[in-house]
Amino acid sequence: MSKLRVAVIGCGSIAKHRHIPEYAENSNVELVAFVDPVIERAQQYANEHGGQAFADYKEMLAAVKPDAVSVCTPNYLHAEQTIESAKAGAHVLVEKPMAVTDEEAAAMIEAAKANNVKLMVGHNQRFMPPHQKAKEILQTGVMGKVLTFRTSFGHPGPDAWSIDGADSWFFRKEEAIMGAMGDLGVHKSDLIRWLLDDEVSEVAAFVGTLDKKDTESDDNASCILRMQSGAIGTLVASWTYYKGEDNSTVLWCENGVMRIGTDPVDQVIVELRDGTINKYQTGEISTNEKQLSSFVVEKFVDSIINDTEPAVTGEEGRASLKVILDAFESQATGKVIKVQS
Amino acid sequence: MSKLRVAVIGCGSIAKHRHIPEYAENSNVELVAFVDPVIERAQQYANEHGGQAFADYKEMLAAVKPDAVSVCTPNYLHAEQTIESAKAGAHVLVEKPMAVTDEEAAAMIEAAKANNVKLMVGHNQRFMPPHQKAKEILQTGVMGKVLTFRTSFGHPGPDAWSIDGADSWFFRKEEAIMGAMGDLGVHKSDLIRWLLDDEVSEVAAFVGTLDKKDTESDDNASCILRMQSGAIGTLVASWTYYKGEDNSTVLWCENGVMRIGTDPVDQVIVELRDGTINKYQTGEISTNEKQLSSFVVEKFVDSIINDTEPAVTGEEGRASLKVILDAFESQATGKVIKVQS
Amino acid sequence: MSKLRVAVIGCGSIAKHRHIPEYAENSNVELVAFVDPVIERAQQYANEHGGQAFADYKEMLAAVKPDAVSVCTPNYLHAEQTIESAKAGAHVLVEKPMAVTDEEAAAMIEAAKANNVKLMVGHNQRFMPPHQKAKEILQTGVMGKVLTFRTSFGHPGPDAWSIDGADSWFFRKEEAIMGAMGDLGVHKSDLIRWLLDDEVSEVAAFVGTLDKKDTESDDNASCILRMQSGAIGTLVASWTYYKGEDNSTVLWCENGVMRIGTDPVDQVIVELRDGTINKYQTGEISTNEKQLSSFVVEKFVDSIINDTEPAVTGEEGRASLKVILDAFESQATGKVIKVQS
Amino acid sequence: MSKLRVAVIGCGSIAKHRHIPEYAENSNVELVAFVDPVIERAQQYANEHGGQAFADYKEMLAAVKPDAVSVCTPNYLHAEQTIESAKAGAHVLVEKPMAVTDEEAAAMIEAAKANNVKLMVGHNQRFMPPHQKAKEILQTGVMGKVLTFRTSFGHPGPDAWSIDGADSWFFRKEEAIMGAMGDLGVHKSDLIRWLLDDEVSEVAAFVGTLDKKDTESDDNASCILRMQSGAIGTLVASWTYYKGEDNSTVLWCENGVMRIGTDPVDQVIVELRDGTINKYQTGEISTNEKQLSSFVVEKFVDSIINDTEPAVTGEEGRASLKVILDAFESQATGKVIKVQS
Amino acid sequence: MSKLRVAVIGCGSIAKHRHIPEYAENSNVELVAFVDPVIERAQQYANEHGGQAFADYKEMLAAVKPDAVSVCTPNYLHAEQTIESAKAGAHVLVEKPMAVTDEEAAAMIEAAKANNVKLMVGHNQRFMPPHQKAKEILQTGVMGKVLTFRTSFGHPGPDAWSIDGADSWFFRKEEAIMGAMGDLGVHKSDLIRWLLDDEVSEVAAFVGTLDKKDTESDDNASCILRMQSGAIGTLVASWTYYKGEDNSTVLWCENGVMRIGTDPVDQVIVELRDGTINKYQTGEISTNEKQLSSFVVEKFVDSIINDTEPAVTGEEGRASLKVILDAFESQATGKVIKVQS
Amino acid sequence: MSKLRVAVIGCGSIAKHRHIPEYAENSNVELVAFVDPVIERAQQYANEHGGQAFADYKEMLAAVKPDAVSVCTPNYLHAEQTIESAKAGAHVLVEKPMAVTDEEAAAMIEAAKANNVKLMVGHNQRFMPPHQKAKEILQTGVMGKVLTFRTSFGHPGPDAWSIDGADSWFFRKEEAIMGAMGDLGVHKSDLIRWLLDDEVSEVAAFVGTLDKKDTESDDNASCILRMQSGAIGTLVASWTYYKGEDNSTVLWCENGVMRIGTDPVDQVIVELRDGTINKYQTGEISTNEKQLSSFVVEKFVDSIINDTEPAVTGEEGRASLKVILDAFESQATGKVIKVQS
Repeated sequence: MSKLRVAVIGCGSIAKHRHIPEYAENSNVELVAFVDPVIERAQQYANEHGGQAFADYKEMLAAVKPDAVSVCTPNYLHAEQTIESAKAGAHVLVEKPMAVTDEEAAAMIEAAKANNVKLMVGHNQRFMPPHQKAKEILQTGVMGKVLTFRTSFGHPGPDAWSIDGADSWFFRKEEAIMGAMGDLGVHKSDLIRWLLDDEVSEVAAFVGTLDKKDTESDDNASCILRMQSGAIGTLVASWTYYKGEDNSTVLWCENGVMRIGTDPVDQVIVELRDGTINKYQTGEISTNEKQLSSFVVEKFVDSIINDTEPAVTGEEGRASLKVILDAFESQATGKVIKVQS
Repeated sequence: MSKLRVAVIGCGSIAKHRHIPEYAENSNVELVAFVDPVIERAQQYANEHGGQAFADYKEMLAAVKPDAVSVCTPNYLHAEQTIESAKAGAHVLVEKPMAVTDEEAAAMIEAAKANNVKLMVGHNQRFMPPHQKAKEILQTGVMGKVLTFRTSFGHPGPDAWSIDGADSWFFRKEEAIMGAMGDLGVHKSDLIRWLLDDEVSEVAAFVGTLDKKDTESDDNASCILRMQSGAIGTLVASWTYYKGEDNSTVLWCENGVMRIGTDPVDQVIVELRDGTINKYQTGEISTNEKQLSSFVVEKFVDSIINDTEPAVTGEEGRASLKVILDAFESQATGKVIKVQS
Repeated sequence: MSKLRVAVIGCGSIAKHRHIPEYAENSNVELVAFVDPVIERAQQYANEHGGQAFADYKEMLAAVKPDAVSVCTPNYLHAEQTIESAKAGAHVLVEKPMAVTDEEAAAMIEAAKANNVKLMVGHNQRFMPPHQKAKEILQTGVMGKVLTFRTSFGHPGPDAWSIDGADSWFFRKEEAIMGAMGDLGVHKSDLIRWLLDDEVSEVAAFVGTLDKKDTESDDNASCILRMQSGAIGTLVASWTYYKGEDNSTVLWCENGVMRIGTDPVDQVIVELRDGTINKYQTGEISTNEKQLSSFVVEKFVDSIINDTEPAVTGEEGRASLKVILDAFESQATGKVIKVQS
Repeated sequence: MSKLRVAVIGCGSIAKHRHIPEYAENSNVELVAFVDPVIERAQQYANEHGGQAFADYKEMLAAVKPDAVSVCTPNYLHAEQTIESAKAGAHVLVEKPMAVTDEEAAAMIEAAKANNVKLMVGHNQRFMPPHQKAKEILQTGVMGKVLTFRTSFGHPGPDAWSIDGADSWFFRKEEAIMGAMGDLGVHKSDLIRWLLDDEVSEVAAFVGTLDKKDTESDDNASCILRMQSGAIGTLVASWTYYKGEDNSTVLWCENGVMRIGTDPVDQVIVELRDGTINKYQTGEISTNEKQLSSFVVEKFVDSIINDTEPAVTGEEGRASLKVILDAFESQATGKVIKVQS
Repeated sequence: MSKLRVAVIGCGSIAKHRHIPEYAENSNVELVAFVDPVIERAQQYANEHGGQAFADYKEMLAAVKPDAVSVCTPNYLHAEQTIESAKAGAHVLVEKPMAVTDEEAAAMIEAAKANNVKLMVGHNQRFMPPHQKAKEILQTGVMGKVLTFRTSFGHPGPDAWSIDGADSWFFRKEEAIMGAMGDLGVHKSDLIRWLLDDEVSEVAAFVGTLDKKDTESDDNASCILRMQSGAIGTLVASWTYYKGEDNSTVLWCENGVMRIGTDPVDQVIVELRDGTINKYQTGEISTNEKQLSSFVVEKFVDSIINDTEPAVTGEEGRASLKVILDAFESQATGKVIKVQS
Repeated sequence: MSKLRVAVIGCGSIAKHRHIPEYAENSNVELVAFVDPVIERAQQYANEHGGQAFADYKEMLAAVKPDAVSVCTPNYLHAEQTIESAKAGAHVLVEKPMAVTDEEAAAMIEAAKANNVKLMVGHNQRFMPPHQKAKEILQTGVMGKVLTFRTSFGHPGPDAWSIDGADSWFFRKEEAIMGAMGDLGVHKSDLIRWLLDDEVSEVAAFVGTLDKKDTESDDNASCILRMQSGAIGTLVASWTYYKGEDNSTVLWCENGVMRIGTDPVDQVIVELRDGTINKYQTGEISTNEKQLSSFVVEKFVDSIINDTEPAVTGEEGRASLKVILDAFESQATGKVIKVQS
């Protein structure tokens, strides 16, 4: 079989740490193009991995006609670039949040369908071994029904992580649209939907810029969620956990409690009402500081090669995004929002 | 000095575990009356500590004319009994929540003022050594401003704790009015107001009965709070933490994180951005299973003897209650509620 | 339903610590007779639990006509008493080892069948929570095939445990027939057969009296087992583990290792080739010093009430015994013995 | 004094990790020749350390006339090369197992004697600090007599360790003759003989190829040993401990238990009947993954320089080998073998 | 053999916690008399153990003519009572410090010799298992020469421990003569002399009453010692270790360090220059709070029965006392004192 | 602002590990000269950092006219070089001990004053984070008065640390004048003065050369100190802590104990009489093996730039030195020395 010809659009941190190295290690893939308005960044990867460098993605689509693309640009560009790529016949892996409005997300799904290409959203939290193990345990039924939960994702903010530091697009609201909520919150709305195999029915939220300077991007959000099953819980996203970085989820269930990511050694701990405690060392949850394999690229490539549904479909990405958008709406309107999915 | 003559109204678990033994150990106090509709309960304490037993508290007030009373009855009786006791010239220590409506709370404060008696509310969380230490540290300014927080109180429910087990008044909504929120949530609204020296400005909540059978009392609540300072956070109360019992508070601040009650050994842990970690072993936080001294009775007695303002005034109790009442209103109306205090 | 009328034959340590208290706590059982040649022992239990005391079990069978009996006497009496009880129409729970020869075991099974009564053997190791958890994991297939194993049971000997101390029948070879092998080894042959769902095909053993004084009962045995599946391993029984008491089993499998009872906290630890480690706190394995519920009596009673096959049938007990008897034969003949089951 | 001129015959892993570097660091030694049929391997060491490279060891003996040689070739070559080297006047350090039959071992001893050269066998386990400490404690008498023991050596097999991976001679039965038993089992027969200062009197064993593919070399052995002192125990060798790698020995004695190599921190732990526990951190036991100094080369060189008996004589190596050979005979004949030494 | 008839003179804490119970458990002893000016205390023990009660010890000696006595009175009485008891033909076990001047100690030794009775001093530290183990290790020579050391004994003072609390004779300088130095310091001078098998040659000290109220008894002493071997070190005694209670000794030697009593689990820890660490769990060192067997009474009785030299002779007690007396002299004179023994 | 032109006199270990790198990292400093009699050492730093190399410091002063110098030479040169540098108009940072007699120290202070330059002494222990935290706690008053203390500094000696190993000037008494006392003891006299904000009033000491070969430099000292406040304690310096390296201080106070540097994780541990325990992780105390930033250079530079008093003045250095000199005098005279400051 000939190799899948892949282009990466946007050469910032997420491309650098995950997409490019994971494509490079994938024996079914040939990296054929890198796109970045800062052409030097694109050129550097072309030098390293072969392929061509472009400053403009449309030019690239025309010139290279890639089989597939990764969209790793600021949030406000996701929809347009995805749709244009689909029109150019390329399968698309788009970073989260997949879009900045629900309408955009719908249009992206439509474009993929119309052009008969795969559309996958980069929700990598699902694939982390602790989350895989947690879902496996939940599916056995041993925990009974989930009653209430807490899921949170907080770190010191993209200042340190982004290639551009404090000048990162994350802090330019017109490009990021969403701050910590788009960066971290959407990971957790996706995770909780997937873990509980349930949909969010209502959301209320306080979202604000509490500490980051010279930005209107939200740096903190405290949300409450009600699920269709009746379970209720809290979802927190923060860019101001300067210490006490956290990416954990705790589920209190009919038969006991499940803690995910609360202990550095035992990533999943189950404590049951009958007194038994089970602890699972599955490998760590990826954080800003530890960039483990995301599995996202691998699964995207597999879905193309085997012509199967992507591991995270556009519909899934849209539903997870909707929760976050409705949280913003709650903040704006002072109302609890009923999530329409 | 002659001893303070105290009567205890309501002889259930809170009277048994805290009020009666703490009065009995207080050398400034003489226990003169015990009141309970189940007269045997009252009689048993009278036999043990001296004093008289009554089934009716008004009868007691008339017969005994106590200097002070503790009101340890179901929530719906707090206001009436407090007001009548005040009218009878007795200082009043009322259990939390001090009342079931804001109007009741206002009337209680008024009655105490009019009759020139002390009114104190039993918010013992403030006096727990870990919380005292936490406040002391916050007041030094070392943490900087609190940005976001999480405070939660969950246990398996009053079924096991109450004298009456699953038949407890806690499960009769007409008597309890509030379930886990009145039992646990109000502790945390009081704690967060006191710790941060701040008032809640907005609240939204999901409150419901998710697992307890044959009751309409709420067994779970997930709330979000915005403080006047701008800090936001989550407040959780639950009677269905069958495992994973929790009474912890975490504050993420400008200069680092403070964890209270998250570790069985080090009750307060401060981790600062400069890399230093300070840990404090102050003694444990009281839980259902470990009934440590509440300090509440001692402070109530002191305020009478020294004629000083009680450690938790009626105004404080009212403000903490208002947060909970507004959470119920949020649940009822689907709106974020602006807290008027 | 009227209660099951049960008699206990033999009132030594195993009756005292397990059978009598477990029957006494079982609401479906009425203890109607206690038998012991030391009549005072029998009388003491009759005083405590009701029922009659007898020195002679045949007399008891005739007088009381119990629905069921527990046979808790020295090994050499198990067969005769079981057969007579069956003939008297009583279901029988016989302690391990069920008999001292294979012929006896066969006759016991036959007698139960002929008289249409249940016959169960007291192999309680199967029911210990760690072993239940271990089998549950093995059955998922996650470990792959078991390749090699080590199972051992050692303690300081029955001197301390038995009611009669160093005068215990365990040290009189004419009554015990088997020493550590009958006391401990047969537990492990039963456990390994059950855990692996496999039969022993060959055994070789060194059995001897290495340290206990004034006895010919074996106090140590080192055995090797080959299973029908091809797995090989070691089985050890010892009454001279004066320190380093051990009741553990380790299974090295195609996909990793499973350790059972090697850690005081995590009773089952699974370590897989993919690097994950799972630890299970299921509650402890019972030892001489910690007499936890054996579950044996409960399961025996259930099988009678529900008319189901006992949890450990006579056939199972016979097969586990055969391994031990063949170990003795190996010691006697200097040959590896092919186990005929 | 002029330096000892040493040649290394066989340049595989054991030469690479132990013999060559340990000779190289020994100031009394000059490495003068390296022999390997894969001449490039030999040449590489000659380039690095000086000396000449040969494909044929006889050619080397003739050309170089070394003072001493290390024989690091596949097992089936040990005897012939040792004898030829002795005839050429070279002292010989031969890797374990020293030979593949007892007759070969006898001939090697004879040849060394006849040619007046030293013959030492590479049983390095004796020199590991934990084993030295264990023997020192046993010799004080504090443990009393050893009653029963367990000694085992298991790792994932030579696939990963050997220079040739799965193509290693270890898997070619015609060259290795013995698999895990020759690689690991003979270490443990040597260790137990030396630690207990005792000889094996009887052995029975199950030996087989349970999991390794495309080989007839044994990958597992479960053995029982009876010592002349009467102590009995188990000896296990395995190439299929894919996890749970183990090189431990436990001795249950009259006065308590000694654990060697069971804890990553405290390599020797003694627990006595009087309740005292002594723990010794002596440095680790060498495993496949951690190649610590073997001390073997140093002691071989010392014995030549000082003209003393080598630390592990041919007779010692022969006795340790005999136990393993008899284990194979037990497997072949279905009999317990009386070890003739 | 008839039993040894023993009288206890002084019924305070040391008699209560050690002497009386240890005599009572000794099958060779009959307690025949108890003496205390508070006659009720004496009478209580007579009631419990048999024998007679006396307020005056001379009366007792005349009336009872005991075979042996324990002198458990305030320090200033030790000499007189010992001498009188010896004259009355009784063997004497005297508590430490044996006397309050060197002349007294000499007279006591003389009296015992003249009357042919045993004289033993209650220096129990020597017999503590950690100290026994430490001396055993030192005697093997593994540590090499001791170069420098630190030995200290501090607790919150006798206020809590003594039967009379803050009214204890320990705080009346005219009765105690020495405070913390007589109570604790003399233990450590005895221990260091015995452990190192060496004599103190020079001492300097600061001794004072730093915190205890209404007493002139010293509550703290910091001393430096030079031994005849040349080793130097510090000796500290304190009654004001309100937290951080300590009874530890650390020896830095030519070959490494030995820590005694610094760890709650491993009472003796040896760390050698070659990197090995040995840890010994021998059982704890007795403290005020944990009164373990002192072994003192047992050894005193043995020396009488077997007619052997007592385990701590009068000469030993005198030499240990001399160090303390010279420390006081250093404080008084501002000089380093050369210890004459 | 133009940069501070700094010269380093003496290029041994302390210059290498602390002064030179800390100047090099300081953006306000330009390294302009390096002086060492071994000119190669000086040249090497000149090559690396720019500036000139000199063998003679006077030549350097004349040629370079530095703004400031660090004096990092053997002790006997400190005074002369400091005075000459001051005369040349250079601010001086001199290593500890600042001089070898009190008269020298006085002259140095005088010279700095006369020439209007800063004089700072390199007592870096004050700046270690654990000591800063300890002083901060002491200043809150929470500990109450310090009653007694222990402070010690011991390591295996300068043999390993010094550039010249066993040939180091530390072992040449004519150059070092003081051994362990000058190297380590003066750190601790400075620390205890500063921590307690108190002066030493009396000192006695045993100082000697107990183990180091071919040197008359003291390798051990055991001292007792009395402070003006009345507190007493021990101060120990040792070059023969071959294992058990120690740089800890323990303060027993009216309200509890403070341990500094006794635990590898929690550098400061406070345990109070009320039962609370506070632990502080401030970062480690620097040892020979871990050379953390000393903060000394930074503070010296700051005092020049801001024209403020240096963090450790000449007067402070002189007072700390005086304690050590008086300890030597105590050793010489056999007297307790009253410290005149």
